[in-house]
Amino acid sequence: MSVREPVRPGGRSARVQASVHAAVRDLLAEVGRAELTIPVIAERAGVTPSTIYRRWGDLQELLGDVAVERLRPDAEPADTGTLRGDLDAWLEQYAEEMSSEPGQAMIRDVLACNLDPTKSCRCRDYLRDQLAVIAARAATRSEVAPDVDVLIDRIVAPVLYRILFDIEPPTPVYCRRLVAAALEAR
Amino acid sequence: MSVREPVRPGGRSARVQASVHAAVRDLLAEVGRAELTIPVIAERAGVTPSTIYRRWGDLQELLGDVAVERLRPDAEPADTGTLRGDLDAWLEQYAEEMSSEPGQAMIRDVLACNLDPTKSCRCRDYLRDQLAVIAARAATRSEVAPDVDVLIDRIVAPVLYRILFDIEPPTPVYCRRLVAAALEAR
Repeated sequence: MSVREPVRPGGRSARVQASVHAAVRDLLAEVGRAELTIPVIAERAGVTPSTIYRRWGDLQELLGDVAVERLRPDAEPADTGTLRGDLDAWLEQYAEEMSSEPGQAMIRDVLACNLDPTKSCRCRDYLRDQLAVIAARAATRSEVAPDVDVLIDRIVAPVLYRILFDIEPPTPVYCRRLVAAALEAR
Repeated sequence: MSVREPVRPGGRSARVQASVHAAVRDLLAEVGRAELTIPVIAERAGVTPSTIYRRWGDLQELLGDVAVERLRPDAEPADTGTLRGDLDAWLEQYAEEMSSEPGQAMIRDVLACNLDPTKSCRCRDYLRDQLAVIAARAATRSEVAPDVDVLIDRIVAPVLYRILFDIEPPTPVYCRRLVAAALEAR
């Protein structure tokens, strides 16, 4: 297990994390994953390799940490005026992002962090938060949304299963069918 | 990409595959994944390392191949007398196997084979075959089963999502609720 220093915003620890994460993102885009090593990342980030080993333990944990950060949504789900419209728009965007090559690489990096299940749970929490925003918005329109965990079972899980275990990525038509079935099933 | 020789049952190629797979399974149990290298596997299997590199390319592809083989079901789903009973029994067993530490390691090994999506699709095909047996058996009892792909969406995908992205594994009660909902939704 890696030993983690608490991260205080603006402190040295937060600056190290930001520069190391940025170095990984840049190097992934420039040279690709196969060339990534901790010494290469350390040099780009302007820290010592031992700083990285101390905080992240190994390359796989660091890649997982960067992937979780990149999976954090940077905006609220679009407001289309209806619950079904919001879910359709959100799920199509999610399926498209996760089906892409960088999206699939991020999922695999998160799942490869065997030692730290909190990473994959953080991904689940991001999705729950987004779906909770959609559900709360539905309530203000007097629409009743299914429970967030039911939505994860009925619309998120099948999309992700298809991305991970199928050759064909989920289509927008497939996504809309999942949303319709989730809303009809109640 | 690895270059694969066609595998003819009983031929040299099949014997090599069997001895290398057996060596990996034994070494995983004896020394664990962190100690596994291609030279160590080759020595145990009685082949040269270059034989392994030629056929599998790298360690990750070999581990993925072994994992897919281990995920191949070795028996038909239990016949409990009803469609719901068959699905309940099958899903509970699947959830239990995949939630275990070796089960999770196998899923991750399969997913880590980025270069070869046919591996993860073979896993899906195994599940489809098992569910098709249950559906065909239901038909002989004049029960109508949901489409196999609908069953994958409604019962398999949520269980796997929970195993991969949640700290708590899926419980038997949760599995039965998924089966009930899948059968009621039609």
